Amino acid sequence: MATLSDPTVTPVLGDNKAAASPFIKCLVRLIRAQDSYGSWKEKCDTDLLACFTVPEEKRRAIPIIGDPDPDVLWRLDVFYRAVGIAIEERSGLLISRTMEINHHGGFGRVLFTTRRLVVLSKTLRDVHRFGFSTLRKLAKTGAKLVNDAARVIEAYPDVARA
Amino acid sequence: MATLSDPTVTPVLGDNKAAASPFIKCLVRLIRAQDSYGSWKEKCDTDLLACFTVPEEKRRAIPIIGDPDPDVLWRLDVFYRAVGIAIEERSGLLISRTMEINHHGGFGRVLFTTRRLVVLSKTLRDVHRFGFSTLRKLAKTGAKLVNDAARVIEAYPDVARA
Repeated sequence: MATLSDPTVTPVLGDNKAAASPFIKCLVRLIRAQDSYGSWKEKCDTDLLACFTVPEEKRRAIPIIGDPDPDVLWRLDVFYRAVGIAIEERSGLLISRTMEINHHGGFGRVLFTTRRLVVLSKTLRDVHRFGFSTLRKLAKTGAKLVNDAARVIEAYPDVARA
Repeated sequence: MATLSDPTVTPVLGDNKAAASPFIKCLVRLIRAQDSYGSWKEKCDTDLLACFTVPEEKRRAIPIIGDPDPDVLWRLDVFYRAVGIAIEERSGLLISRTMEINHHGGFGRVLFTTRRLVVLSKTLRDVHRFGFSTLRKLAKTGAKLVNDAARVIEAYPDVARA
């Protein structure tokens, strides 16, 4: 079992280092698992993750009315699945994810739980515009969520294993 | 604040008694709150709840392919909102509900949490066929969920108030 007291976040300095972080590795693994026809085999990890990065001005231009783009919903799903798996790897506990999205409003909530403990709860806003300005920011956001969850598991060890 | 150690379930013997249970009162209040035009004003509570009862053979005949009927989804939502409100009334705590439904598969999960505590977690199956054979059964199911949650809150008082 992984220990919870791992040195907090791998310092993410550039895109190369970001791509090597445990969270990003989870994310890449999940994306590659969906490549049933091997069409992304030749692509490197950074290329695969490119769809997660959206320049700020482009992101702000995405309309927030109507249903969000299915590709955005796919990315949102994969991102938060990777968060769940990274928490599992870090804690050795089984984590359940429950995500509720109001498509029209573009808001919702995602909860990560283990047994009786809420290890992470996040309000989702601007679902239509889900994306990160850089790969580094993607890695940092994921790592922060995983760290927050690990801290909660450490604070309530009995409830997490109840 | 209501005490958690209320005598477990009000014994539900007939439809009249069922209609008087705290859970059913919550449910009726929620339904009446949606009656913006007063069109259900003349209806008695039992009439309002009639849509929740589906005879067993009729229920089994509902196809479970395609998207569930919007009316069924509305009832599912109101039922589980009533569960949340009844838990709040009983415990004096603020309860959040997170519900994830896979429309095509007709399954999902509903979680009730307060702070760091999962007070109730329920797997949803056969969403297309959501309904109860009798009003009594509706009352009993709701009361059981509320009781289960109250028991968890009693078992983890610190986490519920963390």
